[in-house]
Amino acid sequence: MYNITSLEKGLENVPGFYCGAVNVGMRPDASQGDVAFIRSEVPCDIAAVFTRNRFQAAPIKHFQRYPKDFQTDFVLMNAKNANAMTGEKGIQDIDTLFSHLATRLSVQHPVMSSTGVIGYRLPVEQIVTAFEKLDFDASDSDQTARAIMTTDQFKKESALKVTLEDGSSFRLAAICKGAGMINPAMATMLCFIITDAAIPKEDMSGLLALGAEASFNRISVDGDTSTNDTVMLLSNKQSGIYHKEAFSEALNKVMFTLAMMILKDGEGASKLVAFEVTGAASDADAQKISTALSNSLLVKTALFGEDPNWGRIASTIGASGAVCDEEKLRIYYDDLLIYAPAQRELDKAREAQAFEIMKQDHFTVTCDLGLGEGVYTSYGCDLSYDYVKINAEYRT
Amino acid sequence: MYNITSLEKGLENVPGFYCGAVNVGMRPDASQGDVAFIRSEVPCDIAAVFTRNRFQAAPIKHFQRYPKDFQTDFVLMNAKNANAMTGEKGIQDIDTLFSHLATRLSVQHPVMSSTGVIGYRLPVEQIVTAFEKLDFDASDSDQTARAIMTTDQFKKESALKVTLEDGSSFRLAAICKGAGMINPAMATMLCFIITDAAIPKEDMSGLLALGAEASFNRISVDGDTSTNDTVMLLSNKQSGIYHKEAFSEALNKVMFTLAMMILKDGEGASKLVAFEVTGAASDADAQKISTALSNSLLVKTALFGEDPNWGRIASTIGASGAVCDEEKLRIYYDDLLIYAPAQRELDKAREAQAFEIMKQDHFTVTCDLGLGEGVYTSYGCDLSYDYVKINAEYRT
Repeated sequence: MYNITSLEKGLENVPGFYCGAVNVGMRPDASQGDVAFIRSEVPCDIAAVFTRNRFQAAPIKHFQRYPKDFQTDFVLMNAKNANAMTGEKGIQDIDTLFSHLATRLSVQHPVMSSTGVIGYRLPVEQIVTAFEKLDFDASDSDQTARAIMTTDQFKKESALKVTLEDGSSFRLAAICKGAGMINPAMATMLCFIITDAAIPKEDMSGLLALGAEASFNRISVDGDTSTNDTVMLLSNKQSGIYHKEAFSEALNKVMFTLAMMILKDGEGASKLVAFEVTGAASDADAQKISTALSNSLLVKTALFGEDPNWGRIASTIGASGAVCDEEKLRIYYDDLLIYAPAQRELDKAREAQAFEIMKQDHFTVTCDLGLGEGVYTSYGCDLSYDYVKINAEYRT
Repeated sequence: MYNITSLEKGLENVPGFYCGAVNVGMRPDASQGDVAFIRSEVPCDIAAVFTRNRFQAAPIKHFQRYPKDFQTDFVLMNAKNANAMTGEKGIQDIDTLFSHLATRLSVQHPVMSSTGVIGYRLPVEQIVTAFEKLDFDASDSDQTARAIMTTDQFKKESALKVTLEDGSSFRLAAICKGAGMINPAMATMLCFIITDAAIPKEDMSGLLALGAEASFNRISVDGDTSTNDTVMLLSNKQSGIYHKEAFSEALNKVMFTLAMMILKDGEGASKLVAFEVTGAASDADAQKISTALSNSLLVKTALFGEDPNWGRIASTIGASGAVCDEEKLRIYYDDLLIYAPAQRELDKAREAQAFEIMKQDHFTVTCDLGLGEGVYTSYGCDLSYDYVKINAEYRT
């Protein structure tokens, strides 16, 4: 038995870690940082999940050049420049930054994470000035979370305390950024999770991958996948306490909470919709259908227009490539049966009920294929005028 | 040797065919038809390409129940109701319509094609009134093409005359509808092609499929695929003339012309962009990249915003799943080299040139992967505020 409780604020909840941010002039608004760090008193085990985009950004390549089981005590982050498509020079720029950092602070295998415009070299000299200005003993999760925002409308933090039956406890905390380009294969998101749980190194990658599969890989804003997507988990083991099941549940909870924040912040989105597929011929088919629904522009615009017609849902299911049969399908909005073979046309009463459900800021579309045991749920949002505005004007 | 010349107007160019339309009250604006027909004096061979959506609409299922090599002399069309997801009753409704039609006109294996809202039974009694009002000896391609429009901003017709070396000739003409939901697997489009070429039955399906592959399957408005997509080719052989190569070229030209009209009409689109991929590891990889580009929301919004940055192009290539290497990639806007490994950052001069190119209403993005011989070109358009408006307000 164990208890998981939410904590106020973010990264400052985990003992032994420091964090902070500063503005070096890459971001016009000087009140918000553009360079940030997370530092640990002791070397940490680290696990990471990276984008499946073939053009991985320089910080990811840099990370992958370290020895297999390296430990780190420093994460450097920047916004406004993705350091992607910058070739070998982009990787060398990171080394240059770290050699400057080493003159200020003793660090071990520092790692970096960047977000912003693709195709420009990092402004190394500008970023180096951060090392003079940063307080490496700060604990300012708020500023750190704000420093990595791009098109985000709000900062994203989450922290949990896990208390075991004997009263012992450990903590997890995370910050995250992401709004657009969120796909069922992650995207334009960065997430940094720290913990003092005494998690064995061999559990870290597996649990992180499982958590990502159930959270960041199930949200869709627009179906794209970026060059920089990263989720990192750092553990300093300082609590001396570990409980695998409790840790895994808490990790999943932190990641799911942040994933829902990203979706809620999905560039111009006004609604959050769960696409629950059941009764598919296989789990793979259920996933195909669910992700097709959360990615479909026509479904997204229908959600924005609060159009209760289920025609676009059905059409998207049919186009997904999964096995389906209109004589066995059932579609629900929350608990309201909106399509069944024996009840196809929307009457006025059900249309009015459906409309009430769609007006909510979150609801569930359930598609029961009536064919087998396959299930999958993904999460999407609507597509609004603001999505177009944000993405026509923002330079990625 | 042969000559292909464009003709004015549409279906009226092909001898032996009649067409017309009438408004039976499904469409509020009575000046535009909602039921239309194409009729042939003699039974025609027919070939068709249908949607790959698993929920094929009732008219498609009805068509597929005819004997394999049936001939037809009548195509009935309607807008405003897709007769999709209507089950066996939807198919029976078509039989009911055709039995009414048979009391007015002797027809052989009539076929039907519908477009509009999914999930409602056809208003059979209303449509039957058309059979009293229609002039079955009319030749009004304009009204016919207008009657099948849904969110289309303009009607779509094309007609060609093919003259062989000995002066003999045959003709092809077509009407088409489609705007949104256009995907590299067709979508929410109907196209009816008629010809008096003496094309042998065995050539029809193959040439039609080839033509669709090079036209309707290469355009993307929003990546969705509908329940009703249909391309039909009817030949009455009345000219007695056939030349396979000339026919195939003319057929491709008619279909490509109509496909570009659909793209141009892509719900709110203001630009037409060819995504030409060369040097890919394989044709399949080239197709993956090209269709990923023409479907990407981030690329589409960048086109709308006339943002010359190539970052979203690169990121989409990397996310496509195709083999790629940033050290070998080259990206061009028309003839302007915008990315090469040795020339990554956009300087002001090239940015200004790129901006001039992007301001045009059509241009080409060429991505040379530098890896092999794989090539593919698809065609896309930008995504504007109007796309969201049209699709939030239109009930499919």
